[in-house]
Parts: sequence; C-alpha cells; structure tokens
Amino acid sequence: MNWIYPLDLIGTLVFAISGVLTAIDKKFDLVGSLIIGFVTALGGGTIRDLLIGRSPVGWLTNRHYLLAIAIGLLLAYLFRETIVKLRRGMFLFDTVGIAVFTVLGVRTTMAAGFPVEVCLIMGVVSAVFGGVLRDVLTNEVPLIFRKEIYATACLAGGVVYLGLESLSGLTTLSTLTAIATVVVIRYVAVRRGWSLAIGV
Amino acid sequence: MNWIYPLDLIGTLVFAISGVLTAIDKKFDLVGSLIIGFVTALGGGTIRDLLIGRSPVGWLTNRHYLLAIAIGLLLAYLFRETIVKLRRGMFLFDTVGIAVFTVLGVRTTMAAGFPVEVCLIMGVVSAVFGGVLRDVLTNEVPLIFRKEIYATACLAGGVVYLGLESLSGLTTLSTLTAIATVVVIRYVAVRRGWSLAIGV
Amino acid sequence: MNWIYPLDLIGTLVFAISGVLTAIDKKFDLVGSLIIGFVTALGGGTIRDLLIGRSPVGWLTNRHYLLAIAIGLLLAYLFRETIVKLRRGMFLFDTVGIAVFTVLGVRTTMAAGFPVEVCLIMGVVSAVFGGVLRDVLTNEVPLIFRKEIYATACLAGGVVYLGLESLSGLTTLSTLTAIATVVVIRYVAVRRGWSLAIGV
Repeated sequence: MNWIYPLDLIGTLVFAISGVLTAIDKKFDLVGSLIIGFVTALGGGTIRDLLIGRSPVGWLTNRHYLLAIAIGLLLAYLFRETIVKLRRGMFLFDTVGIAVFTVLGVRTTMAAGFPVEVCLIMGVVSAVFGGVLRDVLTNEVPLIFRKEIYATACLAGGVVYLGLESLSGLTTLSTLTAIATVVVIRYVAVRRGWSLAIGV
Repeated sequence: MNWIYPLDLIGTLVFAISGVLTAIDKKFDLVGSLIIGFVTALGGGTIRDLLIGRSPVGWLTNRHYLLAIAIGLLLAYLFRETIVKLRRGMFLFDTVGIAVFTVLGVRTTMAAGFPVEVCLIMGVVSAVFGGVLRDVLTNEVPLIFRKEIYATACLAGGVVYLGLESLSGLTTLSTLTAIATVVVIRYVAVRRGWSLAIGV
Repeated sequence: MNWIYPLDLIGTLVFAISGVLTAIDKKFDLVGSLIIGFVTALGGGTIRDLLIGRSPVGWLTNRHYLLAIAIGLLLAYLFRETIVKLRRGMFLFDTVGIAVFTVLGVRTTMAAGFPVEVCLIMGVVSAVFGGVLRDVLTNEVPLIFRKEIYATACLAGGVVYLGLESLSGLTTLSTLTAIATVVVIRYVAVRRGWSLAIGV
C-alpha cells in the first residue's frame, strides 16, 4: 500500500514545522528549534519502536524521514509568517498526519505480533508522544492532556482500524476509514470551538 | 515464588490510581488522566527494561499488567472521593508497591546477569521513575527529589536484598526482609512527619 | 586509541559534578542530587545507545563510568564551594567533555554502520541530551535551547570529524582536530560574553 507512505512523510514534515514554530514562539535559538522540530516529528514513532523492541528505531534506517524534517525546518524558517496565516491549511495536514501516524502505529505493532490492546496503545503513542515530548522540552504541561479530543480521536481511529481490519481483512479500506474517522472527529470538535491548535 | 506476583499487580494498580488522581488534581481531561495513570504505573519498569535491553518491555507481553491498570483507572474514576479519604490505606499499598517494585527490579536485573551495583541502581529506577515521569509530564519538579526518604528507603531495601541473598541464597527470605525494610523506613519517616503523599 | 578513554571518563565525572551542583541549587535532597548527577553524566550516551539499538546501554557493562560518577558526586559534596570558585577550570573540563562526547558519539554510531547524517545527529545527542534531561528533571527550559553556541559547537565538531576522517582515514588526527574545533568555538563564544555556564 504505497499511498500511505507519502502521507506519513507529509505528516512528519508538518509535525516538524509545528515543533519549530512552537520553539520560535519560546524564543529558542536556531539549533534549539531544530531539535524541537526533530523531536516533535519523530518522538512518537521513536517511543513506540523502543517499547516494542524494533531496533534500531525506524527513522535511522530511512533517509526520507530526515529529508522530510529538513524540508519542514527550512519551510518553517523561510515562510514562517505565511505558515502562521495558513494555520487552517496546516490544521488539515496536521490532522491527516496524526491519523496516518495512528494507523501506521497500529499496523507496525500488529506486524510485530503484539495483541490487539497493545496495538491500540501504540497507535495513540505514535500519534501523540511527539507533541508530548515537544511540550515537556519547552516546559509546558502537555496540551493534549487538557484538550481531550486529540488523543480521543486517535483512540477512535485505532479502534475503527482494528475492528474493520479483523472483520474484513481489507487493509486499505480499514486504513482509509480509520483516517476519515480521526479527521471527522477532530473537525467536528474544532467546529464546536474546542481547539484549533496546530500539532497539539 | 508466586506470592510476589499479585503484590506486583497490586502495586501497579495503586500506582495507576495515584497517577489518575494527580492528573485530576491538575484538571487533566479523561484521556490525559488515563495516560498519566499508565505512565505512573509502568514508567519505572519500562525504563529499567529499556536500559538493560529486555526487549520488548515486560508489560507488552503480559496482559495482567494492563488489566491491573484498567481496574485502577476505573476505581479511580468511580470511587475518587472515597479513595482520597482512604489515603492512609492507599499509603500502605503504595509503600508495599514500591518495596515490591524495588526487589523485582533488582531480581530482574540480576537474572539478566548484571553486576551488583547495576542491580541496585535498577531496583531504585524501577521503584521511582514511574513517579518521576508522572511529575515531569504534569510539569512539576519530581517530588522524590525533595523528599529523600522515598528513594532512600528503596535503596536500603535493595541493599538488604542483595546482601541477604548473597549470604543466605534464600530468595524468599531476602525478598520479605527487603520489603519489610522499605515499609518500616518509610513508616518511621512518615511518623516523624516527613511525607504522606500517595505514590510520591 | 587509548588516550580518548580517560578523557571520556573525565567528561563523565565533570558532567556528574555539574548535575549535582544544579540539584543542590534547586534544594534537592541527597538522593535526588545523586540521581540528577547520574542522569546528567549518562543521559546523552544512554539515549544514543537506545536509538541505535546498542543493547544493553554502554555504561551498564563498564564499571569505570559508574566509578567516575561516584567520584564526581563525592567531589561535588566535599568540595562544593571550591568547585564553584574554580568555575573557570570546570569550564575547560566541561568543554573538553562535550567535545569528547561528540566525537565518541559519532564514532560509536559509525561503528554500528549508520549513514553519515545519523552519525552527526548522534554526536550531538550524545553531547547535549544529558544536560537536556537534567533541565527537564529540574523543571527548567533546557538551557541549551536558548544558548545556541553549545550545540552548534558540537555540530561543527562532528562535521569536522566526519570530513577529516573520510578524507584522511586518520582517526586520531580527526579526533584531535574535532575536539579542538569544539573547544575553540566555545571559547571564542564565551570571550564574547555569550555563556559561561558549566555543563550547559
């Protein structure tokens, strides 16, 4: 299923931008911002890989992820003001990003042979711990802990994926439906004014 | 030695409750509280397993731990006010919990063939880093760093276990004595008014 | 190349002292200060080892590192006031320490067969994440994120090492030049008044 791979890279790129912008808001310097961008983009998948014993962690053996982050960091510096104005567009990519991270987290964990509840946990970990690490490193209470819908949407997406995939055996259909679930839940929540933060 | 296993599960359950209650105090939402409960209960053993190269980390391959946490989270939500009133009882379970975590941390590390000083360090890591992660994620200075007796009691328990076990070769006796050591030290300290925090 | 090993141990010892002094400033108790000393000294190498899948992490199988830390902790307690006065001397050792950590981080990662950009990242991770963890555990925004020169110097040292080593194949020459690069950059920066913090 090749089409999910570019989505994963776009999600990584958007998370990197989100990390850099947060760091700039905090008046971090260049290298500090780069580090926060990296951690935001790769933190969730890294923690998942460490926990399930996938060694070395995935992004060390695939240059595309580092390239996606490098582009994200460059874009964040060059077009910072434009990006802040395009917050709405960023939000779409960010939401697709967390949806893709959730499903890929679930699938990576399934492929490693873990039971269903562990797959679900790892889907959420993949999607949210990049942002958690970003907030810890910038000395904030992780936003996700006070904005329920973000992790809840991931959880719902993971449940939908696991349910559909075990019923139908159709990976692509299950993936698309799960991604749509995350996006719809988050959009409805935002419409009701719960949150519009990028990369929460 | 089967009798230590239920104690380990009870310790896990109590740590999960402690994490959820801290998160609720901080006005975290449902999913945020669940994550803090998980991290508090499993963080110490997870860091130990990562460091000593036990892969995947232990709780991924044993459903009882996740079940203990699920029960703890449920209890914390259903009986929150009662639990806060029963703080004294919680404190007993919590103290037994850290004692058990310490001894099991030492023994897991010994079983993996590490030298005695590493076993001691890993005993303390197992017992205290769940609480440390909880405090980091809730943006607090880890309480343990300012309330000496908690980690000191674990350290003493680890020394007692390692000493007795190498002298006598009796695992059960050494375990019981080490647990008693941790409990007595912490109780005496609390009697003198040093601390009564649950799951510090 | 035996001469780099004692430098690595001295760097570890100095980082341990830096951690303990920070913890004492924060009014941490004895055991809390010890833990911060440990984490500061071993955190960077530990995170690198976990990421590249070096299992168990290096310091668990080499008693010299724990010994270096134990001596550092002891010195920090016995000669605290003298050390604070000798800040200038500490700064020299600290700078050599981060330089050595950078080069050893790069070389450890190369030896494990990773591509050049991963080696560079791991060099920086080895040098700076001990301090980052220290700051996270003491509930500070990591100093390094606001004092650019520290990580930048490591990055430059890593680039110099990788460039020279691939051109010349001379490990010792490349290592010495890279260390000198880090030291000179940091010294020039400090001369211009950017930072004189120990173990930033």
